[in-house]
This record gives sequence, structure tokens and C-alpha cells, in this order.
Amino acid sequence: MEDGSRKKLVVPEINGDVLSNNDKIIANPNCSTIQLVMALAPLHQEYTMKRVVISTYQSVSGTGVKAVQQLENEEAGIEGEMVYPHPIGRNALPHCDVFLENGYTKEEMKLVKEPKKILGDDRFSITATAVRIPTAGGHSEAVNVQFEHDFEIEKVRKLLRESPGVIVQDNVKENIYPMPITAHQKDEVFVGRIRRDESQENSLNLWIVSDNLRKGAATNAVQIAEYLVEKKIV
Amino acid sequence: MEDGSRKKLVVPEINGDVLSNNDKIIANPNCSTIQLVMALAPLHQEYTMKRVVISTYQSVSGTGVKAVQQLENEEAGIEGEMVYPHPIGRNALPHCDVFLENGYTKEEMKLVKEPKKILGDDRFSITATAVRIPTAGGHSEAVNVQFEHDFEIEKVRKLLRESPGVIVQDNVKENIYPMPITAHQKDEVFVGRIRRDESQENSLNLWIVSDNLRKGAATNAVQIAEYLVEKKIV
Repeated sequence: MEDGSRKKLVVPEINGDVLSNNDKIIANPNCSTIQLVMALAPLHQEYTMKRVVISTYQSVSGTGVKAVQQLENEEAGIEGEMVYPHPIGRNALPHCDVFLENGYTKEEMKLVKEPKKILGDDRFSITATAVRIPTAGGHSEAVNVQFEHDFEIEKVRKLLRESPGVIVQDNVKENIYPMPITAHQKDEVFVGRIRRDESQENSLNLWIVSDNLRKGAATNAVQIAEYLVEKKIV
Repeated sequence: MEDGSRKKLVVPEINGDVLSNNDKIIANPNCSTIQLVMALAPLHQEYTMKRVVISTYQSVSGTGVKAVQQLENEEAGIEGEMVYPHPIGRNALPHCDVFLENGYTKEEMKLVKEPKKILGDDRFSITATAVRIPTAGGHSEAVNVQFEHDFEIEKVRKLLRESPGVIVQDNVKENIYPMPITAHQKDEVFVGRIRRDESQENSLNLWIVSDNLRKGAATNAVQIAEYLVEKKIV
């Protein structure tokens, strides 16, 4: 929260049931993956995902303090250390983390693989393009999903609204949609631009934003810890 | 060109054959559509597109001088006229042009409809999310395409390299890919991050960047005029 306090977190428990007293190490997922899974999990449960196409709009803060400094230096016209191989100010880099042999980045392959692990289901397929943009408050994602089963768009909104840790911001007539500057320093995952994709059956477009330093990292780690205490796993 | 001169333009002639002496008005397509069609036309001809998913990363210059001024003011911490309903500096707005009744923006529906008109083919389907980001040099697009027929990735690169007006920038080992800052003030459409999408058969991911004020508007209009003169249509 902006005042520095932190309200009691809601533990979404997407895969809490896999935890046991024997677990010594618990993985905290990649930042861009967490927000994706938070929004897709309740929809997958209801309609069964078939295929997901993701394009990310990632904050420089995901790279670290030095990357934020690079952006600030560029905006101020100051020479300084380059964390990225190119300028990031007024630019878009289709390059998050390192490139792998298959031509994808490590970040893109995390987006492809981690949701299957977290949801314990590999019957759906994912493809991703991860892009760094000159934002600082949070990661955004344009997500296209095809489901096995058809849906009512109002039911999709309801499922998301009722999902712990997810907030629907979707009133385009009032220019209300998730944005990095409003997600900044919040613990929730914000979903908007919820609309049927008419190009293919059972398909949906979503816009998902979350503070990559909160829900994408620290908040999720705290939530896992709180969950462990609550369930007396530790 | 940076020096103010302009080299002889290559007229790509995607649909030049539809022009006749009877045409008094010739439409110049929307900026984000031109660069998309320039890259997809040679691939569609060879492999027949089935479905396209587009996420755009659009420059503030597409909105006009006042939008560039809004970004500059925000970066400098100066109060000024707001062209967008929200700040654009350090932000991402999933909102280009006005919202329509179906929940899509006018920009998104242009991306859905115009390629079919330009290519004279409506057998493929398109869905789009158009996003404004704090860049100024050009529009970028993450594009996922499924074709009817399978392809060799090297043949895709060759087709794009041989396509007039298209430049392939695709060597990730050397961090070479299209970017707004390098496309700026160029007349060509730049394509990179060319890779097979393993999530679905016959599918491809691309990253397409072009200067929206050059190829996206003025250059294309000049090219149409040059074409008309060359073909003695006027």
C-alpha cells in the first residue's frame, strides 16, 4: 500500500495442496508467470484452456535497480551504465533475459513451461513474446486464450471478480482498464479489456497487469510463507 | 534518411493491380496495418494465413505532436495538456483510438479488417490488442500467425529478405532485432524474432517494427503516388 502498511493478504491457493511437511524448498514462480496464472486459473478450471498466446510489456524494474537507473539516465540525457544491450528509453526491446538455442528467450520459455507446472496440467499449449518497455510500475500482458468449452463473457467477469487476489478493472466507456502506474505498489493482479475473440471459437482476449516487485516476487513469497504457517506445514 | 535526402523508394505493389484511371480517391491504410501487411503478404502468398493474433506497442507519435508533448512534459515533470485520458510516461495504455460497442478499439478493428481488404482475401481471421507505450520512433507488433501449410523457417526468412520494402533484422546471438529507435526515420518495415511457434502446427512468431510516420503514413502515400506516375495511371 502507498502508506507502507500491508493489509492481510489473500492466499489464492492455486496449488497449495501440493505442499507438505517434507518440502524444504518452495519455488516462487517467475514474475510474469504469476500474474498470468492468477488470472487464468479460475477460467481454466471452468472452461479448460486449449492454447494461450501471450505478449508481455515488462517493466525495467524486473531487471533490477540498475535498469531503472539506465532508464532514468536516458530520460535525463545523462551518460551512464548500460544494463541492456540497447537504450530502453523511448524504445521496446523484444528481449527479456537471455536467448536460448530455440530462438526464444529464457523469460518466454518460463511463460511457456511454468503455468503447466503450477496448474499441474499439460494439456494446453502456450506461446509467448516477452518485451521490455520503458515502464516501471508493473508488467502488463496481452493474453489470447482458446478454451475447450464456450463461455459467457459475463460469467468470465464474475469468475475473475470472485477470484482471490484478482481485481477486475474493465469499464472502457470510462477509460478504466489496468495500467502499470495504477498497479504499482499493489498486491493484486488486475484484469481488464475482457472481450470475446471473434476470430476463433471459444476464444477470449484479456489485459493483465501486476506490480512485478509485489505480486511478481515479494508478495507471492510472503503469501507462500503465510500459507505454510496457516496450514501448519512449517 | 537522417540526412534529409530520400532514396528512391521501392513500391511493394501488394495490391497495385486494383488501381485504374477511374480511381479518384485511393485509401492509404492505417499505420499499424501497413507494416503488418508488408511482412505478412509474402508469407500469405506462400503458405496461406489461417489466423493471426496481434499485440501492438504503439508510438505516441501516432497520436500527434500534442501526444509527444504530453510524454515530454511528463518526463520533464512539467504540468501540461493531457491528450490521453491517463499519463503515458512509464505507462502502457491498452487504448488506441476510441472504444467501439464490441469492446474493441477502432484501431484494433482496423487491424482486424484492413488486411483482408488490402490482400483481397477474407479466408483468414485476425484478433488484435492495440497498446500505446512511451516510445516515439515507431510502432512495434508481436505477431503470431497460423498458416494452412507448413513452412521451413529458413524459407520464411528468405521470403521476407526478398520482399521489397522489408528488411530482416534477426540475429539474436548478436542482440539484433527490430526496435523503434533504429526503425525511426527509415522507410522500410523491419522484421525479426522469426521463430516457429511450437504450441500449434504451422505457426510462427514475428516481431515487426516500422516508423509509423514514414511507412505508416507519408512514405506509403508517396509510394502510391510514384506507382501511379510509373504505371501512367495519372
